[in-house]
Amino acid sequence: MAWLRPCWPRCAALRWRPGGAAWAPQPGKAPGAAPRGPRLPRGGRGLRTASAGLGEVPLTSERYQVRRLPFSQLGPRDVAFFQRLLPGRALTEPAALEPCNVDWLRSVRGCSKLLLKPQTTAEVSQVLRYCSERNLAVNPQGGNTGLVGGSVPVFDEIILSTVLMNRIISFDTVSGILVCQAGCVLERLNEYLEQQGFIMPLDLGAKGSCHIGGNVATNAGGLRLLRYGSLRGTVLGLEVVLADGTVLDCLASLRKDNTGYDLKQLFIGSEGTLGVITAVSILCPQKPKAVNLAFLGCQNFSQVLETFTTCRAMLGEILSAYEFMDEKCMELVEKHLKLSCPVRDSHFYVLIETSGSSSTHDEEKLNSFLEQAMTSGLVTDGTVATDDKKIRVLWSLRERITEALTHDGCVYKYDISLPVGKLYDLVTDMRARLGQSAKNVVGYGHLGDGNLHLNITAESYSHSLLDAIEPFVYEWTAKYNGSISAEHGLGFKKKQFIQYSKPSEAIFLMQRFKAMLDPKGILNPYKTLPSSS
Amino acid sequence: MAWLRPCWPRCAALRWRPGGAAWAPQPGKAPGAAPRGPRLPRGGRGLRTASAGLGEVPLTSERYQVRRLPFSQLGPRDVAFFQRLLPGRALTEPAALEPCNVDWLRSVRGCSKLLLKPQTTAEVSQVLRYCSERNLAVNPQGGNTGLVGGSVPVFDEIILSTVLMNRIISFDTVSGILVCQAGCVLERLNEYLEQQGFIMPLDLGAKGSCHIGGNVATNAGGLRLLRYGSLRGTVLGLEVVLADGTVLDCLASLRKDNTGYDLKQLFIGSEGTLGVITAVSILCPQKPKAVNLAFLGCQNFSQVLETFTTCRAMLGEILSAYEFMDEKCMELVEKHLKLSCPVRDSHFYVLIETSGSSSTHDEEKLNSFLEQAMTSGLVTDGTVATDDKKIRVLWSLRERITEALTHDGCVYKYDISLPVGKLYDLVTDMRARLGQSAKNVVGYGHLGDGNLHLNITAESYSHSLLDAIEPFVYEWTAKYNGSISAEHGLGFKKKQFIQYSKPSEAIFLMQRFKAMLDPKGILNPYKTLPSSS
Repeated sequence: MAWLRPCWPRCAALRWRPGGAAWAPQPGKAPGAAPRGPRLPRGGRGLRTASAGLGEVPLTSERYQVRRLPFSQLGPRDVAFFQRLLPGRALTEPAALEPCNVDWLRSVRGCSKLLLKPQTTAEVSQVLRYCSERNLAVNPQGGNTGLVGGSVPVFDEIILSTVLMNRIISFDTVSGILVCQAGCVLERLNEYLEQQGFIMPLDLGAKGSCHIGGNVATNAGGLRLLRYGSLRGTVLGLEVVLADGTVLDCLASLRKDNTGYDLKQLFIGSEGTLGVITAVSILCPQKPKAVNLAFLGCQNFSQVLETFTTCRAMLGEILSAYEFMDEKCMELVEKHLKLSCPVRDSHFYVLIETSGSSSTHDEEKLNSFLEQAMTSGLVTDGTVATDDKKIRVLWSLRERITEALTHDGCVYKYDISLPVGKLYDLVTDMRARLGQSAKNVVGYGHLGDGNLHLNITAESYSHSLLDAIEPFVYEWTAKYNGSISAEHGLGFKKKQFIQYSKPSEAIFLMQRFKAMLDPKGILNPYKTLPSSS
Repeated sequence: MAWLRPCWPRCAALRWRPGGAAWAPQPGKAPGAAPRGPRLPRGGRGLRTASAGLGEVPLTSERYQVRRLPFSQLGPRDVAFFQRLLPGRALTEPAALEPCNVDWLRSVRGCSKLLLKPQTTAEVSQVLRYCSERNLAVNPQGGNTGLVGGSVPVFDEIILSTVLMNRIISFDTVSGILVCQAGCVLERLNEYLEQQGFIMPLDLGAKGSCHIGGNVATNAGGLRLLRYGSLRGTVLGLEVVLADGTVLDCLASLRKDNTGYDLKQLFIGSEGTLGVITAVSILCPQKPKAVNLAFLGCQNFSQVLETFTTCRAMLGEILSAYEFMDEKCMELVEKHLKLSCPVRDSHFYVLIETSGSSSTHDEEKLNSFLEQAMTSGLVTDGTVATDDKKIRVLWSLRERITEALTHDGCVYKYDISLPVGKLYDLVTDMRARLGQSAKNVVGYGHLGDGNLHLNITAESYSHSLLDAIEPFVYEWTAKYNGSISAEHGLGFKKKQFIQYSKPSEAIFLMQRFKAMLDPKGILNPYKTLPSSS
């Protein structure tokens, strides 16, 4: 069987043994492959994005010609108040502020003059009460890993960082319920849980920097959603400080609670515009005893889809991820990050993960599926891995695409939900539309969730290219009843396009909620909801 | 092994073959056992509950001394308007109104004079616009299977029934997303889906009557929550008509959508007080290829808990239910419904269900677990079932406890969430507290979700017994940070106790949401939120 060649022999991935019922390990090591879940470089040199050239990141207010809303200006008495309240944790030094004023993509930049690092909910409450009384705007910030410009100031908003709110409050090994402060880093939480036989129900590329509070505030999706569902189901409770400083304690640690309206849901995904999340209660699944990974090649997108329905039927409850990427993605990962792809000459690549409680059973299921997929010609090449290290190497091919793209030039990023059958048509149509004016048009994402990451690169930023992309991409998405933001949120960059995914009655209602909870509009202004005309 | 006796030979349950690796079927049939999921009898004769004796159900307004709020009185011109709008579907006959004015438990009764049966969202919108303008109160009603008096009027509210809104709008076999009108009966939906290889993500005893709209409006939990999570994760979209008739179309059929605040969440579990749900989009899991059931006996509650942690670890992803019931429950089911319990002489009974994609694998896992549980003495007796009919028979022992209780006398019902280790202490403490003044004090429920159903029966209703139970039960629950309503909601009966589970800041915010969305308070008045003093 030609497709069963011993691909990637240096990588220690597992390969198919012709005629065998198992996938046998091959020794070796992948060159240049990073471990799974690298810390995202913060403000790394040489990154170029949709909004930034190679040099200084332009001020958002100038590039996008935004008008400052009539908030108060920060004065010396304000700074003195905060320095008394948070001794040594109310910073005004430019060096401290710089990384918090610019987003990870280096695409937007604010000019905040004050960075606050509270440690307790009471401190956050005092900060917001003061800001509310003084009409000072506030930008809540977690790990600053957002991709839509939601996590940094647009003007001089005070940055309220959760970086020092990183205490685990409790973990119950019977129920699997974790309660922690909002500033805990996702990867640290997962490491803590793994020691107790559990894992976090979410996982994403930015895990090494992102805060759980930010994850919840943006309703982060990521790599485990297919298996463990969204944060709307797994977050059991929240503690939130409202704009006026009121502490809303909905930090229940119960799986079921039907006593009145579920207020916490309004804050999940509100991107810091309705309140500041200070603590989270979250239901964590058990750490699976066995994890297997298959990395496969398909010749066309129909095969990617059919492989999905086949593997969902055959793997059932052990399927924990189904990711896809096109050949362009793989070219960029190899070119810019020097990673090595174990499967070659395919137009599409698929990463399938299983997580279960019996390695023997899971391997049997996976092998049956692979035989079926290969016999029927759905898959033309592939490799599998069962040990942690090799699994991380294969995952990095998928997880580091975002990073590879930033090395390819100026990146225009779109995060779209679509009916799964339509998912790749948008990439094809966009590629045809842009022709030579784009450097690369690539598509990858969480196919199992109907979530496409469409990315377009160019040598440098140009208004005319942007005009060729937008609003076409949003109109195309709306035509097929998709969402213009599947998991990234709206932040600063997408807020004016909300009407492509939500009817006017819903937007109006959102504005009323915002006005009710934050009447002065001090929380993360210029974000999420469209500016009133 | 004494505990492996061939119990329940007439029932065709599967029994343990000593020394074997499988559980072999026994022929026969359980006498008097009902199929799983019987339709709940509506207003069945002889039912006695906490609020009703054997005769006529007293009017809620009289029994609870409620004052009517100053809504308009329904006049002949109003009736004429509705009869024009809904020809033949605006009913004023007492025979039509009677079953809609009384709850299934026969514990509360309203005196509505008008029953409306719209078929479309546009009709619901016109009804509510009119009622809003005329200040007429409205009681939205699904299958009327609620247990907290939330589904029937308190006074003369117009009953807005979803019974004719029972159309399936679409089902996508790739994504598993179902879109349907709110009045579809849960069991009908499940039957429809099973034909396509899927199931509904929720299941409950009232499945034969309850409407999916009512399930969502009350955030129903039920038997599959352990496996498929809550409706907050599986409901993808809602169409809701607001109090003023505005149609809010958030009926997305996408697994991920982060465009603004998730408004639909506010309506999930709001018990018809914020809007009328007219259509639902819901993510449905695949129908499992193999289902196994084990029905086991334990001698004490510690063993029930340890059996849970053991089986969760060993069954992992295939565990789909872990229910428990005490010996009193089993006595009542046998006595009042003539069901036969296959396991004897245990103080506690546990029902464990597995659902998976491979019957061989699942049986292997289950057998390993059972060997472990029995070897270590956690479980003292047991039987298993793998075929549909026997599984239904065993499930009915658990599902029909509610029904058996109604035959035992006047029932005081409590639906409590607690940390799982504390779950049964409440039953023990209550039993000790009430002594001879109660007929039976029983505990059962969804142990895997930390959800206890505490039920107390007495020969007849008495204020003094109620005073002995309440607020003790709520104070006890609050002391251990539990919820006074895990899945039943607050409805009419529990609304005044919300403060035992929610802080005043949260209740105040709920009241503001209610005032914003329904300024005249016409939607399901007297329910969910406490009366303003």
